[in-house]
Amino acid sequence: MADLHIVVDRAAGGVAAQIARELREAVRRGRLAAGARLPASRELARDLGLSRGVVVEAYEQLVAEGFLISRIGAGTTVAPAASRPAPFDGPSPTPPGRPRAKARTPRAQESVRGEESGRGPYRERRSTAPDLGAFPRQRWLASMRRTLATLPAEALNYGDLGGVPALREELAAYLGRVRAADVSPDNLVIVGGVAQGVSLTVQALAGRLPRAGSPHDLGWFVRRAANPVPPPGRIRLAVEDPAGARQLPLLHAAGADLVAVPVDGEGVDVGALAATGARAVLLTPAHQYPTGVVLSPRRRAELIEWAVATGAAILEDDYDAEFRFDRDPVGCLQGLAADRVILIGSVSKSLAPGLRLGWVAAPPEIAGSLRLARGELDLGSPVLEQYVLADFITTGDYDRHLRRMRREYRARRDAFTLALGEHLPEITVWGVSAGLHLLAELPRDWDEVAVAETAQEYGLAAEPVGPMRYAPGPPALVMGFARLPVHRADAMVGALADALRR
Amino acid sequence: MADLHIVVDRAAGGVAAQIARELREAVRRGRLAAGARLPASRELARDLGLSRGVVVEAYEQLVAEGFLISRIGAGTTVAPAASRPAPFDGPSPTPPGRPRAKARTPRAQESVRGEESGRGPYRERRSTAPDLGAFPRQRWLASMRRTLATLPAEALNYGDLGGVPALREELAAYLGRVRAADVSPDNLVIVGGVAQGVSLTVQALAGRLPRAGSPHDLGWFVRRAANPVPPPGRIRLAVEDPAGARQLPLLHAAGADLVAVPVDGEGVDVGALAATGARAVLLTPAHQYPTGVVLSPRRRAELIEWAVATGAAILEDDYDAEFRFDRDPVGCLQGLAADRVILIGSVSKSLAPGLRLGWVAAPPEIAGSLRLARGELDLGSPVLEQYVLADFITTGDYDRHLRRMRREYRARRDAFTLALGEHLPEITVWGVSAGLHLLAELPRDWDEVAVAETAQEYGLAAEPVGPMRYAPGPPALVMGFARLPVHRADAMVGALADALRR
Repeated sequence: MADLHIVVDRAAGGVAAQIARELREAVRRGRLAAGARLPASRELARDLGLSRGVVVEAYEQLVAEGFLISRIGAGTTVAPAASRPAPFDGPSPTPPGRPRAKARTPRAQESVRGEESGRGPYRERRSTAPDLGAFPRQRWLASMRRTLATLPAEALNYGDLGGVPALREELAAYLGRVRAADVSPDNLVIVGGVAQGVSLTVQALAGRLPRAGSPHDLGWFVRRAANPVPPPGRIRLAVEDPAGARQLPLLHAAGADLVAVPVDGEGVDVGALAATGARAVLLTPAHQYPTGVVLSPRRRAELIEWAVATGAAILEDDYDAEFRFDRDPVGCLQGLAADRVILIGSVSKSLAPGLRLGWVAAPPEIAGSLRLARGELDLGSPVLEQYVLADFITTGDYDRHLRRMRREYRARRDAFTLALGEHLPEITVWGVSAGLHLLAELPRDWDEVAVAETAQEYGLAAEPVGPMRYAPGPPALVMGFARLPVHRADAMVGALADALRR
Repeated sequence: MADLHIVVDRAAGGVAAQIARELREAVRRGRLAAGARLPASRELARDLGLSRGVVVEAYEQLVAEGFLISRIGAGTTVAPAASRPAPFDGPSPTPPGRPRAKARTPRAQESVRGEESGRGPYRERRSTAPDLGAFPRQRWLASMRRTLATLPAEALNYGDLGGVPALREELAAYLGRVRAADVSPDNLVIVGGVAQGVSLTVQALAGRLPRAGSPHDLGWFVRRAANPVPPPGRIRLAVEDPAGARQLPLLHAAGADLVAVPVDGEGVDVGALAATGARAVLLTPAHQYPTGVVLSPRRRAELIEWAVATGAAILEDDYDAEFRFDRDPVGCLQGLAADRVILIGSVSKSLAPGLRLGWVAAPPEIAGSLRLARGELDLGSPVLEQYVLADFITTGDYDRHLRRMRREYRARRDAFTLALGEHLPEITVWGVSAGLHLLAELPRDWDEVAVAETAQEYGLAAEPVGPMRYAPGPPALVMGFARLPVHRADAMVGALADALRR
């Protein structure tokens, strides 16, 4: 039985979260080894002088995140993959031929749908956009005023290529606190949104980014031009099936040759992933796009095992993580295995996409490559808005804004799903525990493109899932509710239902 | 003799500039053909009811920009290269074997200096940084306040990949007015500074950027992964010798194989450029870095001729263009041949590098590629500061700030050059007619690295020119004066002189 030293500050509130944090750290730092058995919740509660429910809540949180495993009759133990260090580059010593979670035939190479849809660029209104009318303009301006009043002049020069240190400090603390990430300011790189973060990370994994700086010397470069330059590398990258389709050209341009791995009700199928031979996988564990599935504890453990055994990298797009409605947010995968997972996030859903502010938390050698790459691409992100975001987090305005939006989005989700159930009972709704969209599965004989167009005509954000699939699936729509006023949800869905029945 | 219809508004002031603008448009639109002879300044002045000096000033401006040619005894004629349309891709019908401006032996491929200096990244304090203490914080904040008070919510979504239209409108007008550029909002692309603008343009010329969008469709990309991807192209790019060394890794990473072309007192040597077989050249015509030379009218004409004849592209880094001290700014090269020149500029010198705001004016197919590329890299630049800059230009705050800084920098230049002449007469000073730096040529037996270090110790911004050279040259320093207070210049340079003599 593990000997636990847990310090709880009752006055500070959030006692279950405090216990979870202490346990998580104990696992990470090796004080709780893989396989170690935890005290029964009743015992630990008695030792700490707390109610049992608080300890159960902490254990459940860590089971959901993949740190602990709970089996009926066997108690609660530390998950095997939760505290294993491994070198990032190249396969680890563990041979890859270990048993697979669930063997599956790889998907046929021919898609049933063959059409090539030439859809518009990113600026089209997406079904997953946040409510931009709620952007906290006054508080943002107040942060800008404070920033401009206090910033030293030199801070307006070319910035640190990895991002403004003040922002990295704030974000590292924030991601540790809210996302249970295992991040220090030094392995955070500020980027221009998730898109740039994903592009640069794939380029790093494909061997396209610098690992050391070149001399700044004209003679050196002129002489170098006489020698042939090796072509940039490519990497076999697995993506979820279905997956967001707009990012695909970006992945290809960054050097990724894509292979699709099916997503089921627990998230990505790790057995199928292992069978692809991919060296990296791009995932949306917090709220899969487009299915809305939250990655299960079992799959989390399997994924980390796969990555450790094969030396592969997991790119965690922390999509929609801020908006978990029915329980505490599940910690990110990166917190389980900081040496194998690259966490990529942004303020595009929490504040506004137009800010183009995001971050990458990566192992040191990848973070270093990203910083060097910014020096050969764009000399880093604009600095003023980085200082403003740091101030916005420090003052607590960011937390307050997120709490307000979480309440608001939950109310909109409730109104929307209620109206769908009322007016369109033929539709099966998936993925509503988090995020700003849901998956609406249509009856087999409905045409998803036609239904999406009708929904758009009636003011509802909807996109057909077809182009997001590799393997065929039932007709379905991604539907966003972030901009749907609660008091209009019933009327709008009712009008759509009437139109569809005509 | 050309028949000129020139309309002048005496009440508006700046009559010489008005005449220059009318003549420039006449040449561009073909109303004044290549070789056409202009009326003598005395005649035109009489026709317009103006003093002759005003017409002479307008003619001189256009000669400096390369639109007109003036020969003693032969009057003033329209330059042969000034109004010739040509397709951008591939060589034009003109055979490349025409006479060259000045034949020269290409430089030997071995540099005398062989050392590889591993200097720090961009964030080091550069000798050419502007005075960041003069950043107009209050007015910038006022523009931000107006922007946040009036912006529609949807404007906070993913922006136009080419940049906020309001900013492109303002900038196109500004660049036409101040830089005599031939730009419309549609062929302007907002980028994160000159570095990103240069990187993307080189990638476009090397054939690395998309020319058409890919379908957003998972099946399409998975099937595509089965086919080999051709390696990205490279391009032979000429750079000036000497040239700014910090940008060299960026150029190489973008696909450029570099060749160096000497710069003399008139700017880049076009004969030597032609001999390299380069398909593109990167230039700083307004104030060459590091020599400070302003490209001569003759060289401008030769450059355009070379580009038209060979189908090559000219990348014009509009470096330091805002700060011309002793006369009106010379219009940009791009205004002479908008189909062959790509103009790249930013607010890094005029406001602050930390804003990371710049632009590229390019022919439509290149501008289109840049927009598509942003969709596959970072989804465009942050939008808020784009709106702020648009407001800043609209209100006239940008012009006012530039006028104030031009006066201030001229005073600092005067104080600095006076002090150098007084205390260090051994040093020959070059390139002081514009910009924020000068070139200080040292006596042959001085060690530029040691002198630069001493100058830095005494608070003067100085960098050795060695790493910026391919062909050997005399020891020299780039010295910046933008941050040098007028009242301290004499004491600081005096202290440096004392230290050097010890």
